[in-house]
Amino acid sequence: MSERHQQFQTFLKSNAEAVEALLATLLSGGLQTDEIARPERLLCAMRHGVLNGGKRLRPFLVIESAALFGDAARESALRIGAALECIHCYSLVHDDLPAMDDDDLRRGQPTVHIAFDEAAAILAGDSLLTLAFDIVAAPETRLPDAAKTALVLALSRAAGLGGMAGGQALDLAAEKVAPDEDGIVTLQAMKTGALLRFACEAGAIVAGASAEDRRTLRRYGETIGLAFQIADDLLDLTADAATMGKATGKDAGRGKATLVSRRGQAWAENRLKELVAEAEALLAPFSHRAGILIEAAHFIANRRN
Amino acid sequence: MSERHQQFQTFLKSNAEAVEALLATLLSGGLQTDEIARPERLLCAMRHGVLNGGKRLRPFLVIESAALFGDAARESALRIGAALECIHCYSLVHDDLPAMDDDDLRRGQPTVHIAFDEAAAILAGDSLLTLAFDIVAAPETRLPDAAKTALVLALSRAAGLGGMAGGQALDLAAEKVAPDEDGIVTLQAMKTGALLRFACEAGAIVAGASAEDRRTLRRYGETIGLAFQIADDLLDLTADAATMGKATGKDAGRGKATLVSRRGQAWAENRLKELVAEAEALLAPFSHRAGILIEAAHFIANRRN
Repeated sequence: MSERHQQFQTFLKSNAEAVEALLATLLSGGLQTDEIARPERLLCAMRHGVLNGGKRLRPFLVIESAALFGDAARESALRIGAALECIHCYSLVHDDLPAMDDDDLRRGQPTVHIAFDEAAAILAGDSLLTLAFDIVAAPETRLPDAAKTALVLALSRAAGLGGMAGGQALDLAAEKVAPDEDGIVTLQAMKTGALLRFACEAGAIVAGASAEDRRTLRRYGETIGLAFQIADDLLDLTADAATMGKATGKDAGRGKATLVSRRGQAWAENRLKELVAEAEALLAPFSHRAGILIEAAHFIANRRN
Repeated sequence: MSERHQQFQTFLKSNAEAVEALLATLLSGGLQTDEIARPERLLCAMRHGVLNGGKRLRPFLVIESAALFGDAARESALRIGAALECIHCYSLVHDDLPAMDDDDLRRGQPTVHIAFDEAAAILAGDSLLTLAFDIVAAPETRLPDAAKTALVLALSRAAGLGGMAGGQALDLAAEKVAPDEDGIVTLQAMKTGALLRFACEAGAIVAGASAEDRRTLRRYGETIGLAFQIADDLLDLTADAATMGKATGKDAGRGKATLVSRRGQAWAENRLKELVAEAEALLAPFSHRAGILIEAAHFIANRRN
């Protein structure tokens, strides 16, 4: 287990470095076909929003899901991972805006609208979202057109009205009217679950996996998505408990009602164990090749930051 | 000419009605595959930003460019036109935000951030941008995957950092430091030209036209894009002149330096004639089938609103 965990950390880190390097290249000054100019300040704002040393968990999931089926699709998986990271980062840039969550800091750095201005943050987010689809469709992504079409469709559904963006709208609404448990589940599935599910399904699409394997990866993605959210909520709750004695005040207000705040820590810890076991069971058909993704499920369930 | 103009107006109106109806369907409550929920308020904000009775000039150009090659691709062209209109409308919703152009009214109606709130306007814009790529890739768009890939790539390049969004960044910067003539040309080519060029090129892609015809349509799109901008700037100038005696104060400040304000009305009117003639010459190989697009060039050059 410890050796496996070490291997996981090594893979996570080396994938993150590859993703960071690719994103830096994609966000360099070099003009692409059909581009008229790359305005310098907007490009800097995009880089600020993306090149922030994140864990790159979503690209990791694309790359390692694809790797279940061999090494042939690794370069394509990296590019699709970078596209997905553009979507994730755009959502952070927009969520941090004063009209949304109004955050001045992210990872200890000023957010884009603080480092630049609100207009730059809005346009940087818009441009990152657009760039994601550019990356998928670009000739440098060496995938069959049918795979590209499937990826564009799945990514847009995961990111848009019926996925992540809709989830952020529900999250803002939840500050005013607390949702019931079904509402919380829907909100979380949209806001964070949809991109994680896409990440794993995308790995299967990139690798040209069978429809059955694609469904399996999708369910694995859903399962770790649920675990990701519960771990997140558990962190909020225990951080509150440690620093304030109870989960009230601004943090609880920002954290809003969660399944964990409603059902308690013991329920959450048990549910995380169940979800990790489910993830392991789903990956059983891939036997030893699934070691990294099984470890990823443990990592997601047990992460402490 | 008058009969042709009447025919053009009829086509423009009937296309706009078809686009409006398709957009209304796409923005109905019906869940699509992979969507988790369609949050009602966000959906309403998206509808407010899109279903506004616009002329739908960009979809018209997609549809009529495709029609040069026959009727077979009409339904697909309509869908690609609707996708393009989602991009155009998202850009208006975001440009109207307080941090950008800060406009309260559009077409006599409150802008999305006034009718809803800023967060809703940001998310509605994000979701419309995302929906555009969804529409292109969706199975209901009955095009070969290679055409969908080409459309996603061309649309993302036209809309993103190196196109429309970059142009808006340059436009905001131009309020602080007036650009030179090259800067104005670049700004305008990005902010408004890129989507118009895409519209015409997309028609060729949708219709499966030859590479040569695709280049011709692209050049036609560039040409009418230039005419569009000069006509726009001319309207600003003459409207200012009519209401204020001269082009100064807030309107001129908002209008910023343009080729027309620098070179004058006579230059602009002459340049418009040249551009219409160029557009006609480009379309000559299509003979009588090009009547509507030739009339569109006249309409764009001579429009008074």
